[in-house]
Amino acid sequence: MTSVHIPLLKTTAADFDQQLKTRLAFDDSTDERVGAAVSEIITAVRSRGDVAVIEYTNRFDRITAQSMADLTLSQADLKQAFDSLDVAPREALQAAAARVRSYHEAQDRESGNSWQYTESDGTVLGQKVTPLDRVGIYVPGGKAAYPSSVLMNAIPAHVAGVEQIIMVVPTPDGVRNPLVLAAAYIAGVTQVFTIGGAQAVAALAYGTVTIPRVDKIVGPGNAYVAEAKRRVFGQVGIDMIAGPSEILVIADGTTDPDWVAMDLFSQAEHDELAQSILLCPDAEYIRAVQYSIDRLISDMPRAEVIRTSLQNRGALILTRSMDEACDIANTIAPEHLEISALNPDEWAKKIRHAGAIFMGAYTSESLGDYCAGPNHVLPTSGTARFSSPLGVYDFQKRSSIIHVSEAGAQTLGKIASTLAHGEGLTAHARSAEMRLK
Amino acid sequence: MTSVHIPLLKTTAADFDQQLKTRLAFDDSTDERVGAAVSEIITAVRSRGDVAVIEYTNRFDRITAQSMADLTLSQADLKQAFDSLDVAPREALQAAAARVRSYHEAQDRESGNSWQYTESDGTVLGQKVTPLDRVGIYVPGGKAAYPSSVLMNAIPAHVAGVEQIIMVVPTPDGVRNPLVLAAAYIAGVTQVFTIGGAQAVAALAYGTVTIPRVDKIVGPGNAYVAEAKRRVFGQVGIDMIAGPSEILVIADGTTDPDWVAMDLFSQAEHDELAQSILLCPDAEYIRAVQYSIDRLISDMPRAEVIRTSLQNRGALILTRSMDEACDIANTIAPEHLEISALNPDEWAKKIRHAGAIFMGAYTSESLGDYCAGPNHVLPTSGTARFSSPLGVYDFQKRSSIIHVSEAGAQTLGKIASTLAHGEGLTAHARSAEMRLK
Repeated sequence: MTSVHIPLLKTTAADFDQQLKTRLAFDDSTDERVGAAVSEIITAVRSRGDVAVIEYTNRFDRITAQSMADLTLSQADLKQAFDSLDVAPREALQAAAARVRSYHEAQDRESGNSWQYTESDGTVLGQKVTPLDRVGIYVPGGKAAYPSSVLMNAIPAHVAGVEQIIMVVPTPDGVRNPLVLAAAYIAGVTQVFTIGGAQAVAALAYGTVTIPRVDKIVGPGNAYVAEAKRRVFGQVGIDMIAGPSEILVIADGTTDPDWVAMDLFSQAEHDELAQSILLCPDAEYIRAVQYSIDRLISDMPRAEVIRTSLQNRGALILTRSMDEACDIANTIAPEHLEISALNPDEWAKKIRHAGAIFMGAYTSESLGDYCAGPNHVLPTSGTARFSSPLGVYDFQKRSSIIHVSEAGAQTLGKIASTLAHGEGLTAHARSAEMRLK
Repeated sequence: MTSVHIPLLKTTAADFDQQLKTRLAFDDSTDERVGAAVSEIITAVRSRGDVAVIEYTNRFDRITAQSMADLTLSQADLKQAFDSLDVAPREALQAAAARVRSYHEAQDRESGNSWQYTESDGTVLGQKVTPLDRVGIYVPGGKAAYPSSVLMNAIPAHVAGVEQIIMVVPTPDGVRNPLVLAAAYIAGVTQVFTIGGAQAVAALAYGTVTIPRVDKIVGPGNAYVAEAKRRVFGQVGIDMIAGPSEILVIADGTTDPDWVAMDLFSQAEHDELAQSILLCPDAEYIRAVQYSIDRLISDMPRAEVIRTSLQNRGALILTRSMDEACDIANTIAPEHLEISALNPDEWAKKIRHAGAIFMGAYTSESLGDYCAGPNHVLPTSGTARFSSPLGVYDFQKRSSIIHVSEAGAQTLGKIASTLAHGEGLTAHARSAEMRLK
């Protein structure tokens, strides 16, 4: 049994704040070569459309497409992938999709409604909620091709009422992932192009003869995809640019330490930059978790990734109290927060910033990653301070409704006129005054 | 009477789509020198904090601040500005603020609630809505200093429950705008720094000894401010980068043409890049509006700005029908859409994309700009296809709530395990399996 050397920090240390800050620091600056390459690709796709898309796809994915037809999958192709699955994965995908759909339908009922009210003088004010017309879902190819990601990105769009959901997924060396295509079939994807990289993002943002221009692009991708999304932002909407995935576990010491160790592993196995942190007021329990980590790691196929991630980015933090653990969680604003405690409600009340809160010993993050229902696309790198999980609201937008009555125009006109003159905007003032009797 | 030469387009023209596209085209690419200057300013503020902020402020605003104390306004300063106002502007500001507050309170009731539900096996799922801790409001100084903007940016944050609302407003040559400071007092701003430009954005994004780091920055600004917001995005949240303001009027020919002409002016007077477009199926009415424009323009203090804007960016468009006018409005996805018609509800139903819809002859855009209640910060340049007016939801974020019961973990664990193995993520699978009995 080889030990995994995860730093043990103590909040009582004089320099704890600095130690934590150093541990959390992450450089997400973009490589200049990536920026230059992406800029060239976007320009090429804007000017040469499908031809450029085919060229880049053949080069980067090592295939020999002759036309866009070779890069387009029909609904029949998706159904075929779905039908080809074994019973167990097919049923698991369907069960997960049903739960994700059900949660997002609840979300739509709670926050997706148009509303209006009428004032005493007959003036009507309100807000109209409408779905986006068309969205693009980016799905990575190769090793990081996750069917669960297809469900999590496409189902909220479908529930929101988006009529056209265009998925792009590269097929390096021509290899298609049947689970990914089956997930697209289940989730309500309208059309699939087997393209990826900055060329796919550019094609979705500006449109080509074959690929329709979308209103928003969501989904994870490598540095080129992230940079392309940054650059087309404004032309289309985008979701947040995701950083490495993170988990923060607050433990009161009552959960089987093996469970907590495995939850930390489940984040660390994603990649070496993933971050797993434990906060606990019980020094003995932290030792027990360290022991579980050392004992369980050798069984993990991705042991080396887990070890590197835990050693370089992880931490076990001894706190003075559960209250202090909650304060630190708010400072970190983690993507995933597990409250592995007997009375998780008490602690969850104190949490202001977290992408998702997993409460109680039975709620492992992995249940939420796949099938609890809430979205697994969550704000990373502390952005939970100001952003939210992907949801139906990301696929809807609002329009203000203002219908001023003749009587209302008399009251409002005088206010507007005074303020407009104060700002030196005479036409604004006159426009209001003309409606006065 | 000198004629204003606004292009008259007809949807029956063979090349109408191209004509419209040309008219709508707007180059928002950033000057490289702006990018380089902003990059330098951000780096300086990050490394030298307050000292850099003071240096840039003295240089760009032509003042001689010795310390941050010279650039900080107290609540007493704001109250003094408020008390110094004449009765008419003070009452108008208060009336506008009350209406804006009331509308955003309705918005908060409609979409700002936490919710959860319990499944039959005891599993609880939901979403918790919390306000941001601290936000920054950018308010331009000098000529474009608009008290109404202060109300529109700060009140939704205040209604959302944000505890610290930090406003920055430059004071070129040391000149303070009492209306702006009074608006800050009314709107619930916590603290004001008289700084602006990229240095203010950088200070808010990263914090200095004096200026607290915020979670989100909103508010309009010049090219330097916009570029700085782009660059700090991710470190903090930002609102949309606004393009030139636009109005689209759909008229059925029943509104006094003078009113419509003045509504077009009210947009055009903002600046030469502002865009005013009329869509109408009645050629005679379009002629009447053109006549009103020619007759009314000479009375406008900003006549030359209006003329340039209308001639270079405006259009009068003769449509085949009101239905076609609605279709074109959806293509344009305007920031402001006036439906100046007898039965605006009938046409509003067909509108999918617009920042705000102003319905009926009495609802001039100017009433909405100042005091109807809905926000005047709206998506520009066609981004209403995928984005919304500024609202309380921009100052709140959501956290998913997942509390799986022991029974729930049995059902969900099997699904998660199957899917995790399918994705090659063994620790995810084991983490779920450990919770199985």
